[in-house]
Amino acid sequence: MTPYIADFLEYCRGPASDIYFQRAADTLAAAGLDPVVTMECFADRDGLLFGMRDALDLLRRSLAGEGEVWALDDGSPIAAREVVMRVRAPYSRFGRLETALLGMLASCSGWATAAREVVDAAGGRPVISFGARHVHPLVGPVMEHAAVVGGCAGCATPLGAQRAGLAAPSGTMPHAMILVFGDTVRAALAFDAHMPDDVLRIVLVDTFKDEAEESLRVAKAMGERLLGVRLDTPWERGRVTIELVKEVRARLDLAGHRGVGIFVSGGLDAERVRQFVAAGAPVDSFGVGMAISAAPPIGFTADIKEVDGKPRTKRGRIPGVAAAPRLRRVV
Amino acid sequence: MTPYIADFLEYCRGPASDIYFQRAADTLAAAGLDPVVTMECFADRDGLLFGMRDALDLLRRSLAGEGEVWALDDGSPIAAREVVMRVRAPYSRFGRLETALLGMLASCSGWATAAREVVDAAGGRPVISFGARHVHPLVGPVMEHAAVVGGCAGCATPLGAQRAGLAAPSGTMPHAMILVFGDTVRAALAFDAHMPDDVLRIVLVDTFKDEAEESLRVAKAMGERLLGVRLDTPWERGRVTIELVKEVRARLDLAGHRGVGIFVSGGLDAERVRQFVAAGAPVDSFGVGMAISAAPPIGFTADIKEVDGKPRTKRGRIPGVAAAPRLRRVV
Amino acid sequence: MTPYIADFLEYCRGPASDIYFQRAADTLAAAGLDPVVTMECFADRDGLLFGMRDALDLLRRSLAGEGEVWALDDGSPIAAREVVMRVRAPYSRFGRLETALLGMLASCSGWATAAREVVDAAGGRPVISFGARHVHPLVGPVMEHAAVVGGCAGCATPLGAQRAGLAAPSGTMPHAMILVFGDTVRAALAFDAHMPDDVLRIVLVDTFKDEAEESLRVAKAMGERLLGVRLDTPWERGRVTIELVKEVRARLDLAGHRGVGIFVSGGLDAERVRQFVAAGAPVDSFGVGMAISAAPPIGFTADIKEVDGKPRTKRGRIPGVAAAPRLRRVV
Amino acid sequence: MTPYIADFLEYCRGPASDIYFQRAADTLAAAGLDPVVTMECFADRDGLLFGMRDALDLLRRSLAGEGEVWALDDGSPIAAREVVMRVRAPYSRFGRLETALLGMLASCSGWATAAREVVDAAGGRPVISFGARHVHPLVGPVMEHAAVVGGCAGCATPLGAQRAGLAAPSGTMPHAMILVFGDTVRAALAFDAHMPDDVLRIVLVDTFKDEAEESLRVAKAMGERLLGVRLDTPWERGRVTIELVKEVRARLDLAGHRGVGIFVSGGLDAERVRQFVAAGAPVDSFGVGMAISAAPPIGFTADIKEVDGKPRTKRGRIPGVAAAPRLRRVV
Amino acid sequence: MTPYIADFLEYCRGPASDIYFQRAADTLAAAGLDPVVTMECFADRDGLLFGMRDALDLLRRSLAGEGEVWALDDGSPIAAREVVMRVRAPYSRFGRLETALLGMLASCSGWATAAREVVDAAGGRPVISFGARHVHPLVGPVMEHAAVVGGCAGCATPLGAQRAGLAAPSGTMPHAMILVFGDTVRAALAFDAHMPDDVLRIVLVDTFKDEAEESLRVAKAMGERLLGVRLDTPWERGRVTIELVKEVRARLDLAGHRGVGIFVSGGLDAERVRQFVAAGAPVDSFGVGMAISAAPPIGFTADIKEVDGKPRTKRGRIPGVAAAPRLRRVV
Amino acid sequence: MTPYIADFLEYCRGPASDIYFQRAADTLAAAGLDPVVTMECFADRDGLLFGMRDALDLLRRSLAGEGEVWALDDGSPIAAREVVMRVRAPYSRFGRLETALLGMLASCSGWATAAREVVDAAGGRPVISFGARHVHPLVGPVMEHAAVVGGCAGCATPLGAQRAGLAAPSGTMPHAMILVFGDTVRAALAFDAHMPDDVLRIVLVDTFKDEAEESLRVAKAMGERLLGVRLDTPWERGRVTIELVKEVRARLDLAGHRGVGIFVSGGLDAERVRQFVAAGAPVDSFGVGMAISAAPPIGFTADIKEVDGKPRTKRGRIPGVAAAPRLRRVV
Repeated sequence: MTPYIADFLEYCRGPASDIYFQRAADTLAAAGLDPVVTMECFADRDGLLFGMRDALDLLRRSLAGEGEVWALDDGSPIAAREVVMRVRAPYSRFGRLETALLGMLASCSGWATAAREVVDAAGGRPVISFGARHVHPLVGPVMEHAAVVGGCAGCATPLGAQRAGLAAPSGTMPHAMILVFGDTVRAALAFDAHMPDDVLRIVLVDTFKDEAEESLRVAKAMGERLLGVRLDTPWERGRVTIELVKEVRARLDLAGHRGVGIFVSGGLDAERVRQFVAAGAPVDSFGVGMAISAAPPIGFTADIKEVDGKPRTKRGRIPGVAAAPRLRRVV
Repeated sequence: MTPYIADFLEYCRGPASDIYFQRAADTLAAAGLDPVVTMECFADRDGLLFGMRDALDLLRRSLAGEGEVWALDDGSPIAAREVVMRVRAPYSRFGRLETALLGMLASCSGWATAAREVVDAAGGRPVISFGARHVHPLVGPVMEHAAVVGGCAGCATPLGAQRAGLAAPSGTMPHAMILVFGDTVRAALAFDAHMPDDVLRIVLVDTFKDEAEESLRVAKAMGERLLGVRLDTPWERGRVTIELVKEVRARLDLAGHRGVGIFVSGGLDAERVRQFVAAGAPVDSFGVGMAISAAPPIGFTADIKEVDGKPRTKRGRIPGVAAAPRLRRVV
Repeated sequence: MTPYIADFLEYCRGPASDIYFQRAADTLAAAGLDPVVTMECFADRDGLLFGMRDALDLLRRSLAGEGEVWALDDGSPIAAREVVMRVRAPYSRFGRLETALLGMLASCSGWATAAREVVDAAGGRPVISFGARHVHPLVGPVMEHAAVVGGCAGCATPLGAQRAGLAAPSGTMPHAMILVFGDTVRAALAFDAHMPDDVLRIVLVDTFKDEAEESLRVAKAMGERLLGVRLDTPWERGRVTIELVKEVRARLDLAGHRGVGIFVSGGLDAERVRQFVAAGAPVDSFGVGMAISAAPPIGFTADIKEVDGKPRTKRGRIPGVAAAPRLRRVV
Repeated sequence: MTPYIADFLEYCRGPASDIYFQRAADTLAAAGLDPVVTMECFADRDGLLFGMRDALDLLRRSLAGEGEVWALDDGSPIAAREVVMRVRAPYSRFGRLETALLGMLASCSGWATAAREVVDAAGGRPVISFGARHVHPLVGPVMEHAAVVGGCAGCATPLGAQRAGLAAPSGTMPHAMILVFGDTVRAALAFDAHMPDDVLRIVLVDTFKDEAEESLRVAKAMGERLLGVRLDTPWERGRVTIELVKEVRARLDLAGHRGVGIFVSGGLDAERVRQFVAAGAPVDSFGVGMAISAAPPIGFTADIKEVDGKPRTKRGRIPGVAAAPRLRRVV
Repeated sequence: MTPYIADFLEYCRGPASDIYFQRAADTLAAAGLDPVVTMECFADRDGLLFGMRDALDLLRRSLAGEGEVWALDDGSPIAAREVVMRVRAPYSRFGRLETALLGMLASCSGWATAAREVVDAAGGRPVISFGARHVHPLVGPVMEHAAVVGGCAGCATPLGAQRAGLAAPSGTMPHAMILVFGDTVRAALAFDAHMPDDVLRIVLVDTFKDEAEESLRVAKAMGERLLGVRLDTPWERGRVTIELVKEVRARLDLAGHRGVGIFVSGGLDAERVRQFVAAGAPVDSFGVGMAISAAPPIGFTADIKEVDGKPRTKRGRIPGVAAAPRLRRVV
Repeated sequence: MTPYIADFLEYCRGPASDIYFQRAADTLAAAGLDPVVTMECFADRDGLLFGMRDALDLLRRSLAGEGEVWALDDGSPIAAREVVMRVRAPYSRFGRLETALLGMLASCSGWATAAREVVDAAGGRPVISFGARHVHPLVGPVMEHAAVVGGCAGCATPLGAQRAGLAAPSGTMPHAMILVFGDTVRAALAFDAHMPDDVLRIVLVDTFKDEAEESLRVAKAMGERLLGVRLDTPWERGRVTIELVKEVRARLDLAGHRGVGIFVSGGLDAERVRQFVAAGAPVDSFGVGMAISAAPPIGFTADIKEVDGKPRTKRGRIPGVAAAPRLRRVV
């Protein structure tokens, strides 16, 4: 459960819930109505489901032993309009949670779905999620967890890695550190000298000099201790191209540094990753940012389908529970 | 300042920060380097700035009296690549905050920018943000605050409204409540009977019956107490059309209910809002969801431009501080 | 033969014929020329041939025993530029009929071709032609006959049905009748009470109320006597959607009215019919108007290919009769 | 009034009327209902109104002195959804005429609208309608009348010309006549010898030889008696081009035949006519076929708006009579 | 070797060479540097190689016995970036030839590649290159040689034919000659009377009269001596169409001239040739101009890949010789 | 006149002329026909005229005192189908020159027209033509002359510069020279040491290192002697970008090298040049290759318009001389 909100259930039921759910609750209570209601939840487009475990935790605490819940597992591929969760319980037990439940699924599934697309494009090469900086820090680690569920091999923040069950967060070195040192080789040697052994020695090589030249300088200075170089050419210099990767690979090989890997980042999305892979560019892993972190949420909708056991729903929807054989009883 | 994280500064400097900033900090410390560094921040596309006040709060506490900061105000229109914040301080004082600072600006400016576009399209008619359900509840109220900065007249959650300085959140009634009552008129009368006087009497009229028929039923039942009807026709029935609004208006007028307003929602974005306005549809206010809440973040970048007073930056960028006459000294 | 013109042959040879054919006839007569001429007729695009039987009736009467004629049958698929009719006779015997012969084939084949496209799209579900109101009443029944040749299962006017050899015209009830009654159920019950037994009990359900609600009201009121409902939602309400059909079906089934069929109409063309069928919408039959009745004619051309047995034709065409193995001698 | 149907009113009320109007009439009669109904008629797109005079004749005879009618005049430009006719009378007096009234307006306005577009494109040069051969002979002359209302200076059939109030139909000579003669000059001389003086001497010059060569041969042979040549180059030879017209003009002028006009036909539509005019091609008049005769009808709709003086209409429409200040009382 | 420049090697090394190669030579000489350099040459797009034999002649004379050269043969299909020539020799021996070597390959391969595309489109029918008039006469015969290498069966100038090893150039007769005679038949008979027997009797038939008519006149006048007609209809008359070819063929056959061939020219490119072939137009051969002669050159690049046996190249390229198994040692 | 062909007139009249002009000449001579013919020449698209002076030289020598010639001047903008040259003389005097005359105008005007487009895009910044390597060396200098007529400030070969009347050819240094030296600074110093003073000191800075870094190294090493740097980044590194130019400018300025210019080359065309200029990139001059040298020729046509003073021309053209008030009598 999200650890950094004191009483998350209260938060979701109250200040973070659409006010009209509170008003509905008050009106129904005043009218003495609290029927058992069946509500179903579905997405408006295909995707990869995530956020369900947190949603169910919340719901379970709110139901406090009453009612039944069926759901799909996090990580399931889902189809547009497929039922992903069904709740049958007295309405007062869960009505005010709708904003929070939908919101968790929407954000998390949006990120996981985008990650899956990039990971599929990478065809087996590891993809690391580096986009925490593009989302509010309150959800940065959540986004990273979603990226890992979507198939990413790593993510950047300690909390994200912890949530995702990874041994450690991933990271190389920022341009800022190299700029402070004033020279890539000097920065690389200091990094190597002071970092614990379990930190990967991957050096960023586009800060001051041509990437190919800098790669050779770093490889020569660090020798066998160098695990890889990171190419992150800025768009002002045309971003990393397929040909640059091939050339750096060739020049490293010519100089005898066949063991040095190449890590590519900078404005990558699924389409560009696909092009690198299709062209046979010798990339060892990809770092991806906004293609995952800026992915739009997937819209989720919650519909009442039965009231007191009778099919009832609003215009535009089919009354009664929908066929949903993949659902599993979870509460 | 975000109220629901115990020690937000610590959170942003540690578990929610990209790990490589921590590693850079450790390496620099071990190497005994802590120069005064000038860092500048800019967006990758035009937009409306938001998130700056929270970012500056964080930064101010982290600098603890050292260094200088210049910035633009929240709510400023900004151009792509325009400097929106400049920090000059010992690097150890703020380096680890980069993930959080950029993330706050990115998410918040993305939402505010999208809201502004919808609000502009509405040409003076009030727009209410109803999209909290499409984002993780941790940032739902933040998103709503951004929407209000972008020009929205209201938002749905109590915390969002409070953050944005509004008297109260906005909301009508959910389909769920009407479904539980089983009849729109019955639900409307109960709502009217039990809600405090300051709650607007706006009734949702598309749950069971044709919107025009239901509008007349509700208007007849509630008389002068009815402030307005909400049209939210689902996409399965073709969504709310310009003609539906005109027809409901005409039928209400024919029946003598000229004072009943019409509130439109359901899949609206700037383009559709523009069409309603251009066609002269008699809409009194618009409710907008994903067009604001699912807006992509605006990418922000932080570049070191000077080290110890000397121009220095990475390849692809111009060394030295950029001309930025609109910046104001804030720390 | 078209029954409602007193002397149709005279009409076609005279007042309804392009004047230059009369002038050509006069000039040739004055010059003492009346060779045996071979004329061939072809279409400018692929299609379904119709109008030939009427054309041949006219031609047969005009030839009065002289000459020979070959033709394809009504209902044949034809290719662009394929010969569909060949006449070999003294030119004075048929020259003035060109306008009428081409015109019959053009209009009739245009309608039949469009009908065939819609019928193919419907994949076996019956299609009824309801477009008489979009063409001049002089040709309304002709258009309907063409629609039936193109595969339609029914048409709207008595004369159209009679020409097409159908037992009876098709029709449900107009909005006008329901409006006069002021209530759909009342109208339906009166219709049922007063119509002969062979009139199908299909009730139009979009006049006053939501289609789903009205369907249930009518089904409840008429019970087993109700054969089906007609959905004809106006474009101002988004026309009939695939989802509406599915919902009405589901609500009727839930209420035990599995035997009530669904008939869909309103702005349908081949493309929209194809979408309904592809989406598995439970439509029992389709009503189609302008997609058939407003179809453009197919341009037909008549070329002289031989004069007195010698190949002769104008620039741009191949002299001599064309290969046309499918032609059948008819006169 | 259409002269060639014995009892046109009876035809329109019975065999040519959608059967469901008859059924509605029978049901209403059996139910003893015959309220005064107000019906309004409008088009689904902008256009030029035609068919109204015939429609009003029919209606007037059917009303037999009862009720009121307002309408726009034939030849009026109309806007989409503008009311073009309003009838207020006992429903039994006109209900069964709906198919015929709408059909007359639909076909006729479709043709007139298309003609107007071509005529506008021609920028003052006369346009002659030659498309009778593309429509059923029952409506060929009606189409031609519409074309003249749309601005055409002439049409091809005697009955069309008579209906349109023209002194005579227009026509040159068919390729067939020239083919029978076997030589254009011979045909032209025979035509000139045997035709009355009021027939224009315009000779078709593309049957056997190059158009420029043939124009000079004919001009030489006929001298001052030649009024013009008609260029109708078939599409197999690239149709008439702008350059061909300029060249024929130049060659005629060089040979001293400045008084011989050039008449262009063959696959012309508004766009191609516009190109000729824009390029300054020396065309004296245009002959147009399918661009007018194959024009789709304009869909007209008739809606009941009041029953017994009370606003009433179906879903999707505004109850009560619409503002229509251009309407004129005609019955 | 190009025969019409007195000292072509000197010309290419001096006045026709980019001045900076001379300056580089002077600088290197002054600095006492003349290493053995390996240079590789490649194209920037796929194509058909031509110009290599002339390039190698030049190079061989310049190397004067020193160094080694590998190359592909003229007429080889080549891929973008494939090595087509490799030179290893003291740089002073060939550096100044770069402009000329690349230029020969660029122009010649561009023309040959375009010719190949047209020839492929013609599917076995002979294609004659007639575009000498679109390029400077200094390279007209070179272009024609390239066209023949690309698959053309003939070309127009004597020098082009000689270079390409053809027995004779190809040509029919110009419009100018027919215009001087004033009549096509008269011109054809004179041509037949005065030309040697080995000149093909192909008569141009679009100068004065319709092509079909003129073809018959010429065929009748020349009888068995006529080998073929050339259709070259100008664009002002719609160019040669597929239908024109079919019609001329049919009219010739009807008149018994089955042995007379049809040669088509005028604005043809690969796409139009493909259409003629696909439509089964009975064309016996095609004459093509700008589609070949105006083809853009293929850009060739020469890169140094080794200096004194060590891999060395500029940024963006892979150091060391590339894999190029198809290369053959030629010097 | 092209100096490097021994007898250029004979070459153009014989081996480089389409054979059918020779055959026409022989046939006409045998038939005893040599009328005075008026021929006009025009282009098939708008452009800039070049090649006329050489064409007129050739023609003047061929006419040998007979006949008259009118023409437009080299460098004139011309419109499609505007007459650019008119010859009136006995046909035998110039008929065989048609291939050469048209070819000179076609190639030369094609290059000049393309150059003009690039020069216009550059908005006053000098453009140097560097594309000799993309065309056959026989026409390389001719192409460069055309480029200068089109507005280029310089070109690469000595002969091109001489033909164009420039003081000297333009050039910096090839990558090859730098590669042989093995270091840009070393190469630059040697170049500076050994070149005469009138050679511009512009150093190519993308061979080994990042362009910005190398620019600073070279500027530091050469000081005031450095006139400029050339950026020619290969496409594998994203070509020269607008931002690279701005950055190099800024870094040079920061280091005090405000006087060092920036020369940009590499795959430039009019569109890319326009973007640099529009973005305010501080480019001092542009080097352009294929955008000029690979430009397609402009098709020119020569038509006979009079024979012995009488208007006569082929089908598709207007007989008689055309209005051409800009023509000037030149022979």
